[in-house]
Amino acid sequence: MSVVRRNPARVAPELAQRFASYGVATIHEAQGRKGLLQSFMRPVWPRAKAVGTAVTVSIPPGDNWMFHVAVEQCRAGDILVVAPTSPSDAGYFGELLACSLAARGVVGLVTETGCRDVAALHEMGFPVWSRAISAQGTVKETIGSVNLPVVIAGQLVAPGDLVCADDDGVVVVRRAEAEAVLKATEAREAKENATRARLKAGELGLDIYGMREALAKKGLRYEDAPGDADG
Amino acid sequence: MSVVRRNPARVAPELAQRFASYGVATIHEAQGRKGLLQSFMRPVWPRAKAVGTAVTVSIPPGDNWMFHVAVEQCRAGDILVVAPTSPSDAGYFGELLACSLAARGVVGLVTETGCRDVAALHEMGFPVWSRAISAQGTVKETIGSVNLPVVIAGQLVAPGDLVCADDDGVVVVRRAEAEAVLKATEAREAKENATRARLKAGELGLDIYGMREALAKKGLRYEDAPGDADG
Amino acid sequence: MSVVRRNPARVAPELAQRFASYGVATIHEAQGRKGLLQSFMRPVWPRAKAVGTAVTVSIPPGDNWMFHVAVEQCRAGDILVVAPTSPSDAGYFGELLACSLAARGVVGLVTETGCRDVAALHEMGFPVWSRAISAQGTVKETIGSVNLPVVIAGQLVAPGDLVCADDDGVVVVRRAEAEAVLKATEAREAKENATRARLKAGELGLDIYGMREALAKKGLRYEDAPGDADG
Amino acid sequence: MSVVRRNPARVAPELAQRFASYGVATIHEAQGRKGLLQSFMRPVWPRAKAVGTAVTVSIPPGDNWMFHVAVEQCRAGDILVVAPTSPSDAGYFGELLACSLAARGVVGLVTETGCRDVAALHEMGFPVWSRAISAQGTVKETIGSVNLPVVIAGQLVAPGDLVCADDDGVVVVRRAEAEAVLKATEAREAKENATRARLKAGELGLDIYGMREALAKKGLRYEDAPGDADG
Amino acid sequence: MSVVRRNPARVAPELAQRFASYGVATIHEAQGRKGLLQSFMRPVWPRAKAVGTAVTVSIPPGDNWMFHVAVEQCRAGDILVVAPTSPSDAGYFGELLACSLAARGVVGLVTETGCRDVAALHEMGFPVWSRAISAQGTVKETIGSVNLPVVIAGQLVAPGDLVCADDDGVVVVRRAEAEAVLKATEAREAKENATRARLKAGELGLDIYGMREALAKKGLRYEDAPGDADG
Amino acid sequence: MSVVRRNPARVAPELAQRFASYGVATIHEAQGRKGLLQSFMRPVWPRAKAVGTAVTVSIPPGDNWMFHVAVEQCRAGDILVVAPTSPSDAGYFGELLACSLAARGVVGLVTETGCRDVAALHEMGFPVWSRAISAQGTVKETIGSVNLPVVIAGQLVAPGDLVCADDDGVVVVRRAEAEAVLKATEAREAKENATRARLKAGELGLDIYGMREALAKKGLRYEDAPGDADG
Repeated sequence: MSVVRRNPARVAPELAQRFASYGVATIHEAQGRKGLLQSFMRPVWPRAKAVGTAVTVSIPPGDNWMFHVAVEQCRAGDILVVAPTSPSDAGYFGELLACSLAARGVVGLVTETGCRDVAALHEMGFPVWSRAISAQGTVKETIGSVNLPVVIAGQLVAPGDLVCADDDGVVVVRRAEAEAVLKATEAREAKENATRARLKAGELGLDIYGMREALAKKGLRYEDAPGDADG
Repeated sequence: MSVVRRNPARVAPELAQRFASYGVATIHEAQGRKGLLQSFMRPVWPRAKAVGTAVTVSIPPGDNWMFHVAVEQCRAGDILVVAPTSPSDAGYFGELLACSLAARGVVGLVTETGCRDVAALHEMGFPVWSRAISAQGTVKETIGSVNLPVVIAGQLVAPGDLVCADDDGVVVVRRAEAEAVLKATEAREAKENATRARLKAGELGLDIYGMREALAKKGLRYEDAPGDADG
Repeated sequence: MSVVRRNPARVAPELAQRFASYGVATIHEAQGRKGLLQSFMRPVWPRAKAVGTAVTVSIPPGDNWMFHVAVEQCRAGDILVVAPTSPSDAGYFGELLACSLAARGVVGLVTETGCRDVAALHEMGFPVWSRAISAQGTVKETIGSVNLPVVIAGQLVAPGDLVCADDDGVVVVRRAEAEAVLKATEAREAKENATRARLKAGELGLDIYGMREALAKKGLRYEDAPGDADG
Repeated sequence: MSVVRRNPARVAPELAQRFASYGVATIHEAQGRKGLLQSFMRPVWPRAKAVGTAVTVSIPPGDNWMFHVAVEQCRAGDILVVAPTSPSDAGYFGELLACSLAARGVVGLVTETGCRDVAALHEMGFPVWSRAISAQGTVKETIGSVNLPVVIAGQLVAPGDLVCADDDGVVVVRRAEAEAVLKATEAREAKENATRARLKAGELGLDIYGMREALAKKGLRYEDAPGDADG
Repeated sequence: MSVVRRNPARVAPELAQRFASYGVATIHEAQGRKGLLQSFMRPVWPRAKAVGTAVTVSIPPGDNWMFHVAVEQCRAGDILVVAPTSPSDAGYFGELLACSLAARGVVGLVTETGCRDVAALHEMGFPVWSRAISAQGTVKETIGSVNLPVVIAGQLVAPGDLVCADDDGVVVVRRAEAEAVLKATEAREAKENATRARLKAGELGLDIYGMREALAKKGLRYEDAPGDADG
Repeated sequence: MSVVRRNPARVAPELAQRFASYGVATIHEAQGRKGLLQSFMRPVWPRAKAVGTAVTVSIPPGDNWMFHVAVEQCRAGDILVVAPTSPSDAGYFGELLACSLAARGVVGLVTETGCRDVAALHEMGFPVWSRAISAQGTVKETIGSVNLPVVIAGQLVAPGDLVCADDDGVVVVRRAEAEAVLKATEAREAKENATRARLKAGELGLDIYGMREALAKKGLRYEDAPGDADG
């Protein structure tokens, strides 16, 4: 169980970079509504955004020793993805570890634990998505693993997968599917841009998407409100 | 069950508008501490504020088809109020629907579901109060109803009722009571203004409200702190 | 049960003041990882920070009468610490009470209840840490106590103890230990400053803290990632 | 707000009685999947079952005075339905009140609060559905109302409505719809009995309900499991 | 922090024993509604009941080493009271430790963590009140303390205090107050017995407790239900 | 996404059967404390126990159509494992589906959704582990997949894996590791039997496991309780 895997294959940096202009919601839709982490994973400061290649960590409850081991395995463009082996909201991660990760070019942290030093993280612009904010310290007694696949917040993340995170949450894109998902994302964005213009002009989704007939078939009926309607 | 009621009577726009300068807490107090939605209903961006007339939607879990139906029933000054028939935190609502609502003059959304595109909603200034933030997409397979009364976050909301929302939460004012509640709110605000001045000047609530005798009757007693008191 | 203790001994103001430059996480570590309130205690507006001497209040569910009694017992540099005798998220506290506390020089509120008037509190810069935000009003029927020790969010707080709060949460420092904890905090901060510099320069925690041997002894092993590793 | 309404119309006892042989899930389905209270409403002892006509109570947080007022309004065949005006898990109700209700022929209690004396309630066979179990006592200081409509656990319940509860939860049937819902329930039960026999005999729902074509149209495809399949 | 205190003074066994015939709700009321642990502390099997003198344990998250240290400090009539220093639902405790405690005459366990081997504990009749049921194992790396005061589920428990637990929850009685609380409990039980008889005979609490005048003074009014009342 | 895989390889029935005499906690420990589903997965009736080979289902929120598809893929000795693509507590599963599964020799259901007809399931002895109990019905509009790997309650489960469940929770054993885990489980059970006998005889874990020296090295010290110790 306790192993550190060096140099897993990763989504190529140039490919990863092209995801940066799209939102999590759009990417999630584009890849068929899969890969979204549970909604309790929230940014510790608002408007945070990150896209990176996953370095995965499996870690014991209340014990952050493996964070230090994981830092060494990170390179520029990575995002650290940390799952405890049993639930914990303790503050595994704070500003010092963020300095260490930032020095290596790591773009953020996604951790199903607590996080601390929120004000300092905000100031230095290091984004973190976590399950909780807590100053509770941790011990360094028990080891875990780095760069094995982990389940985090309901999703399987493999080392080298692409992880995208913003205000809406966190989504994982399988390494092997990144190219295809990017194309689908670009296509979806283009389509949404066209729709947005029509909606802003006052057209209805009912008409743009041609829903009226389908709704009628399902049995939807319209009637005037009873009594003292003002229309 | 699946019906769309057109043109329900609404609180008059001029009357609704006069609520805009008061906070949810004050309105809630002024109408006798009723009508407050449960506290898990939170604004998706801070300092949001909205007052509007309710267009109500009953919607299946994980299915946002009826949002599109509801948009057509909205007019300027409305606020959309959406209750799922069984609990769901999915991201039913995002920026495209917000564009559509904003184009019709809708002032905000109150939804006991998840919401997505938070950053975009903040930028465009469209306020949303929701139970969760989630990028999770929804399907368009099952119909619901528009402008029937709904129970949302513990409160009954009828179409045309007044809905006020700010950082403190969301309160509903019955259409028939809006006039009276406005008066009570204005009176309360005036009284609070007077009290505020006295409190800022250092007077105590104990004296302003004349509580000392009642507290003594209830048996409250005072004593010096034991041991090494520094007073 | 229903007693108000006047003038409990407090941590000296000059000593309290010296904690103001340190974060909750650092103080919590420095005193041996004790005294941290549970992580559901959150600031109602971001970047809030406060250090004060505790005036403690035990209060019934849904009844805020004792807040008014407590105000009179507060002096400059105090922080109000409020625990309900049974769980309640109601909005016990709002802007008017904040005006009253601010007029006496109170530096903040820590309450295991709900809080309201969040926007106004933010504007006036009065910091509150609470379990919930809610506009729900309370009654004034039942008395409680002031300046008896209380259990709040999993910690015992005695009147006169030091309470420090920021974005990371809330920590209590026993009055008798404040001097020693301050020294330990200063020492820890100095040490962290040195470490921070080395981490920013790219040194690894593994080396700074000399962890490699201990990890090897625990059985941690390294291997190359299988298959199509790109390293 | 504080009023006691005497003698509301109720579903007729003989009609109510005929619901007793059906489960909550079946009744809920039969009336079109509406009226179900949220799933946190659980029986305090297993295998409890009750059908009664609602006497509704609106009650302050942590204050059970109105229970005593409500008892007098109950008659044989009623079920007490209690909603706090703001959330509370306190133990409003215990064995003494159960004795009082049982003496009047009341068939059970549905309360969105805590309940205590669980062992005694089990022994005397008085069924309670509550949000929590808690020994926490309550005060008797603030009044509420009896037999006004209440919102409880997400549903509107009017006095005299039919309330059915078992291990699966609690469902409300509108007084005016009881007759029709009973018929639909009987029909559904009959149909389920027929289906049950076929399922037990090994027939598949896919065939009984004729789903295969619809699934294929939606795009469902079948393939053999890869690799070392043992079939 | 890491100390084991031997032989703390305890409530005398004969005194403790006399609490055995009373329920947690009654004891909690009799001592003025204090000392009740939060309601998430539930028995792992129904109808469990225990009264014992507290041996207190402070324990790290996900680490059960100190359970073994604590066993040695227990004697007949004790109840083990375990609080983690940071929240954990892991399964710290199971059948083997129960065998060890039972061999020493320990009457039960109250732990703000998870518990496992529920079926075996039920069979051997060893009662446990816990925050969760979980098979998740723990490590043995970090030490804690035995017989220092702990805060557990919102209450302070000192070694030697009396702890009473049943289906309704867990209550702590201070050692110094046990004698007085017993008397108050006996008195309350006697009074409740008298009231119970009257309630069963159909008298109303409104009359027994003489509430009618007080309710009228508060403004409670009665009216007939509108419309089609059947009374 | 929407595919049904037929005949995945499964753990051999004879091998699966040999796990039936061991508890979830023991198996979980024996395989190195991995594979345990989160603790919110609870049996809907007490003392339930099941060991089976997984047929996995991925299912939309509030839509149980795929249950019917999955039944056909089940054979004797299987256990159905169902994960929704987004969280839902709706009552996807009830007695009719249980009849259908039982008719095929399926030994139980593990579902991260709600379940209904609890009383009937108990009577027929069909065990279910679920996240909630709810009578809330579901629709049949959207398809999912059968026998692809799913993440459920924090664990990855592949079709054909072994799933063991009892009062303590649910654990998954990888198909390829089942043989080895069985051996480790048998060994652990034998060891625990020996330990149990010694603990029952009054020996201490401190001595049996030889912990005293390690504890002393960690710095644990013993002292007599202060003041009025009675030892």
